[in-house]
Amino acid sequence: MRNVTKDNITDVFKAYMAASTDARTREVMGSLVQHLHDFAREVNLTHDEWRTGIAFLEGCAAVETEDRHEFVLASDVLGLSSLVDMLHSRPDATSSSVLGPFHVSGAPPLAYGGDMKRHYGGPVLLAQGTIRDTSGNPIPNAELDIWQTAPNGMYASQDDEQDTFSFHGLMTVGEDGKYAFTTVKPVEYTVPSDGPVGDILRACGRHPWRPSHLHYIIKAPGFKTLVTEIFPDDDPYLDQDTVFGVRDDLVMTYVEKPASEFPEGMAISGKVDEPFLSVEFDVILAHA
Amino acid sequence: MRNVTKDNITDVFKAYMAASTDARTREVMGSLVQHLHDFAREVNLTHDEWRTGIAFLEGCAAVETEDRHEFVLASDVLGLSSLVDMLHSRPDATSSSVLGPFHVSGAPPLAYGGDMKRHYGGPVLLAQGTIRDTSGNPIPNAELDIWQTAPNGMYASQDDEQDTFSFHGLMTVGEDGKYAFTTVKPVEYTVPSDGPVGDILRACGRHPWRPSHLHYIIKAPGFKTLVTEIFPDDDPYLDQDTVFGVRDDLVMTYVEKPASEFPEGMAISGKVDEPFLSVEFDVILAHA
Repeated sequence: MRNVTKDNITDVFKAYMAASTDARTREVMGSLVQHLHDFAREVNLTHDEWRTGIAFLEGCAAVETEDRHEFVLASDVLGLSSLVDMLHSRPDATSSSVLGPFHVSGAPPLAYGGDMKRHYGGPVLLAQGTIRDTSGNPIPNAELDIWQTAPNGMYASQDDEQDTFSFHGLMTVGEDGKYAFTTVKPVEYTVPSDGPVGDILRACGRHPWRPSHLHYIIKAPGFKTLVTEIFPDDDPYLDQDTVFGVRDDLVMTYVEKPASEFPEGMAISGKVDEPFLSVEFDVILAHA
Repeated sequence: MRNVTKDNITDVFKAYMAASTDARTREVMGSLVQHLHDFAREVNLTHDEWRTGIAFLEGCAAVETEDRHEFVLASDVLGLSSLVDMLHSRPDATSSSVLGPFHVSGAPPLAYGGDMKRHYGGPVLLAQGTIRDTSGNPIPNAELDIWQTAPNGMYASQDDEQDTFSFHGLMTVGEDGKYAFTTVKPVEYTVPSDGPVGDILRACGRHPWRPSHLHYIIKAPGFKTLVTEIFPDDDPYLDQDTVFGVRDDLVMTYVEKPASEFPEGMAISGKVDEPFLSVEFDVILAHA
């Protein structure tokens, strides 16, 4: 097309794609560019605003490192990461929620009833439940990968004071599908806001906070792997998670119980002499 | 919003923006995220495809340098740069066209009738015309910044064989608005395709070629600065410029003329003894 105009340029882009282009590539690129062009036309995007957008991408590039994933963070705070999660969630299974940047592979084994709290202060949190299929039957031998913040709001990878795998554990659940472990109550925390993504949050009058959560990845042969988070119902950021991770079925009550009700069979049974918190959360996996 | 869903997440994003958010920021970010989410929903974007997108941005970051602007190039080959140009072109003025990455500030002065061809081989190209306002009146003392490829298809900044300002010149036109200079015919060339943007072109079955052109920036007090390009009508890439820069009113005929018709008053008048090419191109500037 010799005479490209603001009205035909999207069709010209689509016509440039060769007949041999993979059908899915054609669909995704066609839709991406249609929406990119429609956005520019809709807001009558100026050259200055275009330069601001390019400077944002170049700014992300400047802070991107192996430990700092600014493009992923941008996707998170714009809601794209959560949207992709939700597009591929199964309605009859537990909701998925964002993986985030703090999962690390190679967490140490955590036996049923094991403890991640160790020497940290504050009340014990007892977390337990059953991994089930969509018919309610326990799934034997599922693998539960757990991670969370320390009481200072930091993950081990962010914090020189913590061991590499502090508040990370990998549990293989039993034949009965049950899991249980003790830890501390996780706390709310902020996503990194000292870079270009922080500039977006500030421009939009938004805060960088995420509500506190236990983070799980659950895998079992024959089932769709689930990444999810469990939120306490009294968290102040439940209604405004800056990465859009909260779903109704992931909000739980942390119930305070007297020390006398702490169960047998846990690593720290017999050592609990203060009231503790208890949360029960069954996970439902969809068949693969 | 506690229960974020794939259907309400766009409204949740918009509701997160504070009441104090600048109205234009709200408009641009709201439209951007509406289209980003609509794209993901429309194609049911998968996690793998999302990762491909993030890897693309991280790949651009990895090759981005002061001399290599991969994010700008991505905008160029997706048609966004040209679209923004066209959104802000004046219909009664000469069409604008992409600035591209090869303009450099500080080009040496080129007097009326001056020569940029120097020792390079091939026929002389004589380019001339008048800078006019939208009523057809000459604009006195406009500044014309000219740049183009050498016969090897490279701009000076890409080519160790050329001087820094080879095929760059800055002309102040006279009271009559007229400009004229001699040069070589520019040649078609490829945008850099050894990076992530090249991967997009290949995935879409597209080539990286741009049609040959003379590149102008024209400035005059009281007028809107114009960035534009002049294309010869026999270029093989006119109908498929990979950055969407061609407009009907920018396509000209390079007319071959006998040496005897070469005009007086040019720097190389009297030294032309072969047929030469002539292109006449008047530029119309809109009032600021």
